[in-house]
Amino acid sequence: MGTCYITRKEHFNAAHRLYVDKWTEERNAEVFGKCANKNWHGHNFTLYVTVKGEPDPDTGFIIDLKVLSELIKEKVVDKLDHNNLNMDVDFLKGIMPSIENIVMAIWQQLEPHIKGCKLHCIKLIETENNYVEYFG
Amino acid sequence: MGTCYITRKEHFNAAHRLYVDKWTEERNAEVFGKCANKNWHGHNFTLYVTVKGEPDPDTGFIIDLKVLSELIKEKVVDKLDHNNLNMDVDFLKGIMPSIENIVMAIWQQLEPHIKGCKLHCIKLIETENNYVEYFG
Amino acid sequence: MGTCYITRKEHFNAAHRLYVDKWTEERNAEVFGKCANKNWHGHNFTLYVTVKGEPDPDTGFIIDLKVLSELIKEKVVDKLDHNNLNMDVDFLKGIMPSIENIVMAIWQQLEPHIKGCKLHCIKLIETENNYVEYFG
Amino acid sequence: MGTCYITRKEHFNAAHRLYVDKWTEERNAEVFGKCANKNWHGHNFTLYVTVKGEPDPDTGFIIDLKVLSELIKEKVVDKLDHNNLNMDVDFLKGIMPSIENIVMAIWQQLEPHIKGCKLHCIKLIETENNYVEYFG
Amino acid sequence: MGTCYITRKEHFNAAHRLYVDKWTEERNAEVFGKCANKNWHGHNFTLYVTVKGEPDPDTGFIIDLKVLSELIKEKVVDKLDHNNLNMDVDFLKGIMPSIENIVMAIWQQLEPHIKGCKLHCIKLIETENNYVEYFG
Amino acid sequence: MGTCYITRKEHFNAAHRLYVDKWTEERNAEVFGKCANKNWHGHNFTLYVTVKGEPDPDTGFIIDLKVLSELIKEKVVDKLDHNNLNMDVDFLKGIMPSIENIVMAIWQQLEPHIKGCKLHCIKLIETENNYVEYFG
Repeated sequence: MGTCYITRKEHFNAAHRLYVDKWTEERNAEVFGKCANKNWHGHNFTLYVTVKGEPDPDTGFIIDLKVLSELIKEKVVDKLDHNNLNMDVDFLKGIMPSIENIVMAIWQQLEPHIKGCKLHCIKLIETENNYVEYFG
Repeated sequence: MGTCYITRKEHFNAAHRLYVDKWTEERNAEVFGKCANKNWHGHNFTLYVTVKGEPDPDTGFIIDLKVLSELIKEKVVDKLDHNNLNMDVDFLKGIMPSIENIVMAIWQQLEPHIKGCKLHCIKLIETENNYVEYFG
Repeated sequence: MGTCYITRKEHFNAAHRLYVDKWTEERNAEVFGKCANKNWHGHNFTLYVTVKGEPDPDTGFIIDLKVLSELIKEKVVDKLDHNNLNMDVDFLKGIMPSIENIVMAIWQQLEPHIKGCKLHCIKLIETENNYVEYFG
Repeated sequence: MGTCYITRKEHFNAAHRLYVDKWTEERNAEVFGKCANKNWHGHNFTLYVTVKGEPDPDTGFIIDLKVLSELIKEKVVDKLDHNNLNMDVDFLKGIMPSIENIVMAIWQQLEPHIKGCKLHCIKLIETENNYVEYFG
Repeated sequence: MGTCYITRKEHFNAAHRLYVDKWTEERNAEVFGKCANKNWHGHNFTLYVTVKGEPDPDTGFIIDLKVLSELIKEKVVDKLDHNNLNMDVDFLKGIMPSIENIVMAIWQQLEPHIKGCKLHCIKLIETENNYVEYFG
Repeated sequence: MGTCYITRKEHFNAAHRLYVDKWTEERNAEVFGKCANKNWHGHNFTLYVTVKGEPDPDTGFIIDLKVLSELIKEKVVDKLDHNNLNMDVDFLKGIMPSIENIVMAIWQQLEPHIKGCKLHCIKLIETENNYVEYFG
């Protein structure tokens, strides 16, 4: 028939801080404002994972969404949820946790495990007013 | 000026069931879980139809949204709303009603009737946590 | 300190039909319109359960939300989700599944099991355009 | 004419941790689960402040919403936003930052400053799935 | 069984301006800011109408929502939608169109026509950040 | 690493009217219906601005969202908010204020000022049921 795109939404709540170690306190405060607060702040993050492919002739599925959801939980959400994005997450070690960088790191986590269809987009909503998308 | 994309949102509420006739009960239960329930379940579906084109120099419209809305109602929503997607819909006969397959069938229903601009995307939200897009 | 109200949101997807057995087909069609369709239709239902009480001096909790969520799942959501509200649900047997009646039946299911605080409100959203609340 | 209720929505993003100092690590983990993580987690909090009163005959206002919004910002949001609710907030010192306790503390912050009408409700949404209300 | 509350949501888009004729331009600008703009501004208004009563033993309905929706359309929405709230609406003549005053005027429009149950609340959302409720 | 897309959401409330001067009243009424009302109507418009680029190695930012937000406010939102789109906006002079035309005019306003990354999309939501996107 052709190619469809299916998207699964997941959630995680986490703390983070924007801070460049090699900069002075002043420069960090100037660039990141309140986001540099040394005692952290946090967000409810909403994650959308989109895959593309052709539906199976029997099931009509591009992918079993339960399988996709469990994969996202295992590789991404369980590692991020109720954690500190600067300190607690193996796949973010050494990475400034801007949403741009988080989204690209989530792509790296998921892409090798998507079977039978292709990862198309990672979208991450940080607040009601901003979100980032990455297409690989 | 260039090409714009305009999107109209519509709604329908319907029952369906995911079930492959040639499979055993056990295999259906294993693959589709609760979605295979023989007494049906249902959803509030949200449908987004996007067309693209150049705005008319006088009206500033790619398409008259009232015309688009009436077309979607006549060809799609009136046939799906408060119906059973496995049993009641002429254009879904013989089609497993996964959202992927529904989205592609809606495209076939609408595409020949879009005049003066082009159908670009059909998006269908099945639950708060998943949706499908099709671009033809 | 005083009394607080805490609310937990849950979801279920179900099929139903509005139909009075003792009425003729015509009267059913006249009163219930498309909602009387013999092949069912369905909705994504959103359920809000509100309890009230005084926060515990140590935990600051009126109720442990994990406990409340599991109670709602066991007594209500697991019985309704992906089921047929006219046929599959023990606590709706013999009850016309209007949202008004469903909400009052959910209250009866939950109220005896709420410990250490009091059930205050059951709210059920059937579509984007209508919902029902019941306060006991 | 009679009494109206007007509500203003505001936002803040913050980190917190649920932890009772006098308890063991084990008991904290058992009661609060991932919310006890020593490296913090966080949320996008949505705050609704409702006041009640009779509209002014000239302006039709219960309260000037710009005044209410600035009051909420000064007394509440500026103190909470991008901060750590366990460490950074003067009016939460010594208070377990459960949403129940935060809501009651916000009431104490605002109530003395509402002039010409009465504070009616503080509502705080912590995640998509839970919120607390307090009516004084 | 007891009393339930059912709510119907409707929409209208309208222009308005906040301006007291007997005041100077300066005082109007000072009190109402940009809302006093002489060339108008506008909103997408969302209206919630809640009625309360006991469900009918046969239908399980407090009120037929189609009847309620048509009543709201005839008495309220058709008069407000795509109109100017200062100039075009019979039931707002001589009334400063603050949301507080609009909500009370909508109550007066609807209350005499609600049969078999009682009007409980009119809620009107003017922007994402503010709304008014009136309970008669 | 590669290219990311970041989106900022802003709001404005405005009045407008759809009307072609060279047409008769009748033809305007026929084509635009209630949108041609001579006393105006209005909307809460939601604006999404998406830029694309590579994150900075230090900050992890494609663009500083505070800078983007201020730019959108200065060049777009402050000119549109609480104004009349047919009369009050310099960059819409002589332009029929359909959402298609507004979106393309907003692109022209912003595109020359985006530095260090590229403007990718302007999306404007006019009502709950329709929106327009423009990609340059």
